[in-house]
Amino acid sequence: MYETKAYSAASATSPLASTRIPRRDLTEHDVQIEILFCGICHTDLHVARNEWGNATYPVVPGHEIVGRVAKVGSAVTRYKPGDLAAIGCLVDSDRTCPSCQEGLEQFCPNQTIVFNSPDKHLGGVTYGGYSDSIVIDERYALRVPANLDPAAAAPLLCAGITMYSPLRHWGITQGKKVGVVGLGGLGHMGVKFARAFGAHVVVFTTSPGKTEDALRLGAHEVVVSRNADEMRKHAGSFDYIIDTVSADHDVNAFLNLLRHDGNMTLVGAPAKPLAVAAFGLILGRRSLSGSNIGGIAETQEMLDFCGKNEITADVEVIPIQKVNEAYERLLKSDVKYRFSIDMASLRSG
Amino acid sequence: MYETKAYSAASATSPLASTRIPRRDLTEHDVQIEILFCGICHTDLHVARNEWGNATYPVVPGHEIVGRVAKVGSAVTRYKPGDLAAIGCLVDSDRTCPSCQEGLEQFCPNQTIVFNSPDKHLGGVTYGGYSDSIVIDERYALRVPANLDPAAAAPLLCAGITMYSPLRHWGITQGKKVGVVGLGGLGHMGVKFARAFGAHVVVFTTSPGKTEDALRLGAHEVVVSRNADEMRKHAGSFDYIIDTVSADHDVNAFLNLLRHDGNMTLVGAPAKPLAVAAFGLILGRRSLSGSNIGGIAETQEMLDFCGKNEITADVEVIPIQKVNEAYERLLKSDVKYRFSIDMASLRSG
Repeated sequence: MYETKAYSAASATSPLASTRIPRRDLTEHDVQIEILFCGICHTDLHVARNEWGNATYPVVPGHEIVGRVAKVGSAVTRYKPGDLAAIGCLVDSDRTCPSCQEGLEQFCPNQTIVFNSPDKHLGGVTYGGYSDSIVIDERYALRVPANLDPAAAAPLLCAGITMYSPLRHWGITQGKKVGVVGLGGLGHMGVKFARAFGAHVVVFTTSPGKTEDALRLGAHEVVVSRNADEMRKHAGSFDYIIDTVSADHDVNAFLNLLRHDGNMTLVGAPAKPLAVAAFGLILGRRSLSGSNIGGIAETQEMLDFCGKNEITADVEVIPIQKVNEAYERLLKSDVKYRFSIDMASLRSG
Repeated sequence: MYETKAYSAASATSPLASTRIPRRDLTEHDVQIEILFCGICHTDLHVARNEWGNATYPVVPGHEIVGRVAKVGSAVTRYKPGDLAAIGCLVDSDRTCPSCQEGLEQFCPNQTIVFNSPDKHLGGVTYGGYSDSIVIDERYALRVPANLDPAAAAPLLCAGITMYSPLRHWGITQGKKVGVVGLGGLGHMGVKFARAFGAHVVVFTTSPGKTEDALRLGAHEVVVSRNADEMRKHAGSFDYIIDTVSADHDVNAFLNLLRHDGNMTLVGAPAKPLAVAAFGLILGRRSLSGSNIGGIAETQEMLDFCGKNEITADVEVIPIQKVNEAYERLLKSDVKYRFSIDMASLRSG
């Protein structure tokens, strides 16, 4: 066991503050990673403030991690000191269940999440990426293409895979008409991926002011979803819609835009149940689905795809000392489109 | 044009009563069918009483029709007088749209439904199967296997295809675990088909008294859905659930029983929107879908499958004079499991 610097929340109402946390010593399959950048996802804030009721304090958030390998265990084969490496939500799973065998660790009933998950090595809960270094079994570490800016690559580990995986799963390719609802951290990655896959991309937003930016990011069209006339023009025309909105909203207005056999996938999770009109699904054999990150192999595939196509998140890089301010701005959607914490600020701070 | 006997509702509050209605003269592609039996579906009652707000009076309900060909037009090739033939919901479509080209006439934007749909030939609206005879283009007529009891085959035209089509579409085969929610006209056909396709079939019912009957119909297990302990035992275990309930109910309790990538399909349409918890879909990449009848080719496939496997509905045969009483019993689910009207009673009455 060794100690490392971190930022943690001591309670649901405490701001994040500098602290020291334990990390396990390397076992033979582990790599120790010096963290360079960590993205800020809304989930970090939900858990730090115990908004889902499952927080164990102190909470060290952070699950969009890019760093450099500092040390490797004796049996490690895929990493050597100096390599760029990334860590997302998943840091362990049982490796034996049918989901793990299929490479779908995101469905493993015995998975370990990178923060606020029972820590099998040290007891207590796992501590995330708002820290100086972290230790992980190489099976759950990911390679980062060298041509990607590490600050802008960090958000790929959650925002990126959360959008990439469903777009792949539901077969988005050349010629499909794809809607992206909401243009934030998730939505802007959805636009980039859907465009890269060859789709005709339509962004739905409640903010007409986002039109120019949506087009710059790769959208072909922008629809202001509060404008019923604009919406009606697209009735029955979409193959697929991905909905990133986590506030309460009317999903039926979007379901009616799907063609027969179309699918709408929720990746944002409104706290209140959504009101779904059965007829909107029945007439047209439409589906409403959900999706959550992806497996380890698919996350690597996504990073490799990003390397090949030079895709990263649009980030605003901040020092860790500004993390509480960043959380307040996140609540107002005042970021284009993801905060990435430069962890050098933690080491020098 | 000729006149034929029928039963119609004159208004939303009128009981059905004997009347005479016009039918078109045969065109070259038409067949004229003497109706032997017509099933009673809840939709008949919804429209007769204008519960969906789209009724045009008089309403002659009926869309589960089995009869005998009386006459054929000069260009008819597939039917000859004396043949058994069936008619379901669809009696016409534009034949040229992508859906029609794919054999998915149920999605055609210009379809004609067998009753209460604009009648292109005579003006007004189409009149359904609670009548002595009917005229239809042979493209939309269906062959009935000779080994099936025509009274019990009639409900296959709506209740049957409504269950057969989604079970086929979502790939129900040997080894799949399939839930059927609700054991009524639709549910009892779902049990028969899912069992015939090789699935492990679980019936969900709120009525413990239906257990014996569910097992007789082919279910392997019966779960009383109000029993949370019984429900919990099945968490995360279903490949597929088909939900026939049209009353307001908690779909989340069933979504949580799906394994990852599982699908639940609504074929009953509650009037009020359903409350759907996003997390139930997101964790497990589950889907909630809807489905409505099937195309003409698939309806024929279903009838042929029923012939081969000796599948029909469980029916209570009634004379047309008892149709109003049957509607009242339908509202109390007091039928095992479908009423089938013997149309000889109309001719002799």
